[in-house]
Amino acid sequence: MIRILLTNDDGIYAPGLMALYEELRHDYQVMVVAPEVEMSAVGHAITLNFPLRVKEFSINGKFYGYAVSGTPADCVKIGVQELMDPPPDIILSGINLGANVGVNVLYSGTVSAATEGAFLGIRSASISLNTRKDPDFTFPARFSREIIEFIMKADLMPGTALNVNIPALPPEKIKGIRITKQGTGSFKERFEKRTDPRGNIYYWLSGEKLIENGDPENDSFVLSQDMISITPLHYDLTCHSEFKRLSSLIPQNWKTLIRKD
Amino acid sequence: MIRILLTNDDGIYAPGLMALYEELRHDYQVMVVAPEVEMSAVGHAITLNFPLRVKEFSINGKFYGYAVSGTPADCVKIGVQELMDPPPDIILSGINLGANVGVNVLYSGTVSAATEGAFLGIRSASISLNTRKDPDFTFPARFSREIIEFIMKADLMPGTALNVNIPALPPEKIKGIRITKQGTGSFKERFEKRTDPRGNIYYWLSGEKLIENGDPENDSFVLSQDMISITPLHYDLTCHSEFKRLSSLIPQNWKTLIRKD
Repeated sequence: MIRILLTNDDGIYAPGLMALYEELRHDYQVMVVAPEVEMSAVGHAITLNFPLRVKEFSINGKFYGYAVSGTPADCVKIGVQELMDPPPDIILSGINLGANVGVNVLYSGTVSAATEGAFLGIRSASISLNTRKDPDFTFPARFSREIIEFIMKADLMPGTALNVNIPALPPEKIKGIRITKQGTGSFKERFEKRTDPRGNIYYWLSGEKLIENGDPENDSFVLSQDMISITPLHYDLTCHSEFKRLSSLIPQNWKTLIRKD
Repeated sequence: MIRILLTNDDGIYAPGLMALYEELRHDYQVMVVAPEVEMSAVGHAITLNFPLRVKEFSINGKFYGYAVSGTPADCVKIGVQELMDPPPDIILSGINLGANVGVNVLYSGTVSAATEGAFLGIRSASISLNTRKDPDFTFPARFSREIIEFIMKADLMPGTALNVNIPALPPEKIKGIRITKQGTGSFKERFEKRTDPRGNIYYWLSGEKLIENGDPENDSFVLSQDMISITPLHYDLTCHSEFKRLSSLIPQNWKTLIRKD
């Protein structure tokens, strides 16, 4: 039986995680390892300066999984290296409340759990639903079965994770399923400056709006067209075009800065 | 005069940041915007659920910069969008205590400050010194001038950041300077399981050891050869080889899952 680690960044109480668990638990060997509190926008953070606590977590007196005092990436690390033996075959992160497309991918704890899994050599996927209110996880949970099969059948390259974003629509309204690229468009955002009751200034990040370049192969564009977006991600941030170009541009005088012996 | 935002992840008190400030403040218009406390391994986290506080920070009664109650990426965002007007020409993050190479790049707050800067359209670099004890920031600080000039002269592509790692050696012992790729080798790591005085179990992440594949163009390999490593990074995590391959592998039966009308 395929063994699956389930995690998320909305925390172990999140309905999106429960939807995955209920959908998959009869046909797969699933293990929930999730943050004990919400960990959105934590990026690829890991906990080094504090110890991690792991608590058995039950719902209605029945064991549900492990709650970890850390980030989604922490959950994957400790799940793979301590709590599951042998390690899982697949890691699924989600179902996230809200899309994770474009540069948001870099801020997303949900996605970083999947890239951490890929980094540990385990096939992984993050699944996000494109709404923040009144979510219906029925179809996304069902679609997670397809993602599991696709990962296995396509023999997903080690070190790769799939970032799946699903429109918040009934399946018959969804217009297609596309393999996409992460958008790299810019954000329009600003800070709201406020004054607290004691006269101190504070700031809220607000007014975020993703401005994409309209590339029809981008995750955000595909999602905006009511299609499911599946982006293969790896953990290599190298800009290979600049790698090639800059190598020929190293200044001659740098040689005089070093190795004077 | 070139305008530079200085930040880091070791916090506003860090000597590595002060070394950059002292080196550059006479020849450039510098502004320090740094986390008020240490923020290592926070990855590309941003603060959404709490407001940010910004405090003027003085050393010996003289204004030094702004201390922000957030992450390095927060510092860059609020520095660029609120505290510096017009925005800076360049963002420098560091000088970090300890190398940021290989997949550590994804965990690093120092590097994420530079990629956040690149994302905001500002040429950026992170600078790290390959030691965690008895650091001598003299040469790395001096070398930051070279990085600034290189960024300007090479006309670094918008959306790119340079991740610079410097051996902890006197300059005459440094054997070269290379443009590199981010290593994607694996980690060897484990958790240490301990019991606290009240009988509760906790875990420390420990025993991290980067295992690279020996590619001589990788950041970690170059650094291990006592050379300076300069890696151009972008913020696109797409695995382009899998993007092309997977597009042809979408199962036919997925069409029956959606659009039943």
